[in-house]
Amino acid sequence: MSKKKIKDASKKVFPHGEDLEGASQNVLIIGAGLCGSLLALRLGQKGYNVNVYEMRPDLRKVDISAGRSINLAFSDRGNKAMKLVGLEDKVKQLCIPMHGRMIHDTHGNIFQSNYSGRANEYINSISRGGLNALLLDEAEKHKNVNIYFNKKCKSVNFEKTTARFKDYNTKDEFVEDADIIIGTDGAGSAMRKSYYLSKKFLFSFSQAYLTHGYKELAILPKENGDYKIHKNALHIWPRGNFMLIALPNLDGSFTVTLFLSYDEGEYNFNNLKSEESVLEFFRNEFPDALAVMPNLVEDFFANPTSPLGTIKCSPWHYKGNTLLIGDAAHAIVPFYGQGMNASFEDVVEFDSILDKYKGNWETVFSEYEKTRKKDTDAIADLAIDNFHEMKDHVANPIFQEKRKIEMALEKNFPNHYSSKYSLVTFNEDMGYREAMLKGRAQDKAILNMLSDGEITSSGNLETILKKVKEATEAILEDDRIAGLK
Amino acid sequence: MSKKKIKDASKKVFPHGEDLEGASQNVLIIGAGLCGSLLALRLGQKGYNVNVYEMRPDLRKVDISAGRSINLAFSDRGNKAMKLVGLEDKVKQLCIPMHGRMIHDTHGNIFQSNYSGRANEYINSISRGGLNALLLDEAEKHKNVNIYFNKKCKSVNFEKTTARFKDYNTKDEFVEDADIIIGTDGAGSAMRKSYYLSKKFLFSFSQAYLTHGYKELAILPKENGDYKIHKNALHIWPRGNFMLIALPNLDGSFTVTLFLSYDEGEYNFNNLKSEESVLEFFRNEFPDALAVMPNLVEDFFANPTSPLGTIKCSPWHYKGNTLLIGDAAHAIVPFYGQGMNASFEDVVEFDSILDKYKGNWETVFSEYEKTRKKDTDAIADLAIDNFHEMKDHVANPIFQEKRKIEMALEKNFPNHYSSKYSLVTFNEDMGYREAMLKGRAQDKAILNMLSDGEITSSGNLETILKKVKEATEAILEDDRIAGLK
Repeated sequence: MSKKKIKDASKKVFPHGEDLEGASQNVLIIGAGLCGSLLALRLGQKGYNVNVYEMRPDLRKVDISAGRSINLAFSDRGNKAMKLVGLEDKVKQLCIPMHGRMIHDTHGNIFQSNYSGRANEYINSISRGGLNALLLDEAEKHKNVNIYFNKKCKSVNFEKTTARFKDYNTKDEFVEDADIIIGTDGAGSAMRKSYYLSKKFLFSFSQAYLTHGYKELAILPKENGDYKIHKNALHIWPRGNFMLIALPNLDGSFTVTLFLSYDEGEYNFNNLKSEESVLEFFRNEFPDALAVMPNLVEDFFANPTSPLGTIKCSPWHYKGNTLLIGDAAHAIVPFYGQGMNASFEDVVEFDSILDKYKGNWETVFSEYEKTRKKDTDAIADLAIDNFHEMKDHVANPIFQEKRKIEMALEKNFPNHYSSKYSLVTFNEDMGYREAMLKGRAQDKAILNMLSDGEITSSGNLETILKKVKEATEAILEDDRIAGLK
Repeated sequence: MSKKKIKDASKKVFPHGEDLEGASQNVLIIGAGLCGSLLALRLGQKGYNVNVYEMRPDLRKVDISAGRSINLAFSDRGNKAMKLVGLEDKVKQLCIPMHGRMIHDTHGNIFQSNYSGRANEYINSISRGGLNALLLDEAEKHKNVNIYFNKKCKSVNFEKTTARFKDYNTKDEFVEDADIIIGTDGAGSAMRKSYYLSKKFLFSFSQAYLTHGYKELAILPKENGDYKIHKNALHIWPRGNFMLIALPNLDGSFTVTLFLSYDEGEYNFNNLKSEESVLEFFRNEFPDALAVMPNLVEDFFANPTSPLGTIKCSPWHYKGNTLLIGDAAHAIVPFYGQGMNASFEDVVEFDSILDKYKGNWETVFSEYEKTRKKDTDAIADLAIDNFHEMKDHVANPIFQEKRKIEMALEKNFPNHYSSKYSLVTFNEDMGYREAMLKGRAQDKAILNMLSDGEITSSGNLETILKKVKEATEAILEDDRIAGLK
């Protein structure tokens, strides 16, 4: 790699019709994962001189998927970002639509619970590697974007706006400076650690782990390449205190994830130590999954068990020098399928605030945090709620009754009702926080009216819609009066 | 200090009627503040061999109050601990009863809002140093308790159950071992840092700062030693975005605390840099306080500005080797006057669980966390709520109307109604979490019924009590059905 100071970068060529707002500004991005490569692409489109440093090898050349989620849920908020950078069509080719949850009971019975009553609302399974490679390719088409691999960030000096890296090839350490540095280096962010350890300002920070961890497994394709179970769904085996899920891949396989307590319950990660115990666990709990997973035992002992953590922090920036975006600022658990979507939406929000205040990085950074943090806090909390909903509530009669009513309302009044799931997933013009408040109030209204016998899933839908809207408003109003948020 | 291994401690004499359960067990306590000295006393009473290491000098010999709160609110949960160790009467002599909040407006008008409608329910102002000295004296009466000062804990090896200290006198570092080590070393706990930094287990941790900091000031006594403002109240000057409070001391003075944003609003800690600006701020906002604070400017620039943070973490223990208690496990902001009381209640809870499971430290520690953490999480959240209530709501008409009704209910139905404040402060047999849930539901019920005109403060009290109870139950039931906590 070039060791020249990036501030000395000579004039760039802008063949893609960029405006030249950023031509004199050097932006250093730490991390070329999904968020970092999208941000590099967008800032490249705007004409900034962008240098990206990534600790891993180039995933387009080396298979580095081991131990990481190899597919992800992609939905409307993420797509909003793809539209922004002009990649909607290319990304669509990587997507497998999932119309609902396919729920498997212990007897092998299945039933599908759609994500929405509107046929055009569904989520997608997408390959992390495939999407990341596309974003890297598109970013590198810009001459003003350079991406360097195998360079691990060790620390950031946020007062001098410099970052220290270790080159994994040469083992050398070196320091780079820039006009601004943006950390998109994920849940283990080196920049965030520098904020935490410096004690030069009050840094609020939390890391919260669930009692459960996860392990990735696989359902391989049939010999002819076909899918062994229904392709267009997110499969769930909910078991109260633990669950298994499966998302389809383009090659006919499914990535399967087991979510299980580390140390509680009859079966847990700490006591599943023998082949026999793993097989017994799956025979008892997931017999139909076991039937399509001859590779179970091998995968189980080859793949790591990983923790499930939520990270929040504030401030996200130091003056106008450095900024955290994506998982580096707000890592969440995967249960709402919103991790990548939230990070992509970060870039959309940042882009719009940059347009508004360009030329003043400190204002851009502080306004960005002010408008965005309430929403990333909300999706973090929603994702934890959904952990409980997925492993437990989806198999609970009153929650099923609620879903039934909501599906009918969405189908019959497509312009007048959206469930919490729809508000969060398919209403990309409403922030996560507003979606959470409205969605939770709706849930509370419906569950209480079902419990009181005030509505039933066989009742008149127009009457139900009216009652749900009134009860939801009353709940929100009562909370407002009590000073609750 | 003795450098002998405390495991070799020779047989002890137990002149105070202790039972001998702990005679063969060596307990190392880090920190001889309020919580550590109380715990040392209690474990001393139970016969354990207790060694306490404190980083500060002995406060009975050296004045080390500079920059720390010199008085605190002491109430029923704290008193429960004093009863446990037989010190209720001695502590009472250190207390100044405060029957309510004395609220000062910007014109110098005052009105008192009592803490309870029951005359026997009040809180107390107590000297931190005086109470700490008493607990140290009482602990040291036990031959099996030794307290060492000027020994700063650097780290804890929780697998080997050893702690490394630096002796501030000799500058030497040394390592001590024990059967168990308990960290009562406050918000900046060295043991908690060892948990965090080790990465040997999943450690959930949060530090959250308010936008406001605080600074201690003083109202000195009159020349004849009398109090310049009413002695038996907690004085508050609520101003929406900031506030001043004052608590009495036995010597006729008041400790005054200014709570103010670091950087927002017309006046803030970052811009109050000149004598004139400080005087202008007080002349505009706190004229009656300024009139009794001729020492204001001197104090303002001599005393530090300190942050207001909440710390939560989990687990509090590592196997059966080490345990965090008090602020080390759960530091909270001061606005409910419960910081010390919560830490003292920790000792009461720990003591009772120790009786139940003694002989098995791992079970003692994990059961203690299981029963206690929900309550310390609750008081942390309640304390932040009260920050907003004190600086803002106490001057808000609908909140004043609510307080008026609650005072009347408590006075007229002393056995049938307790406000949230009373549940938290005076109902020491109900845990903080239950008090929070019930108290918040009551507040919501009363505020909504006031807002809807369903009740007024001039209505029939018996009817109001019935309505409040019914509405509270309905709120709690709705939350239960919706799966909210």
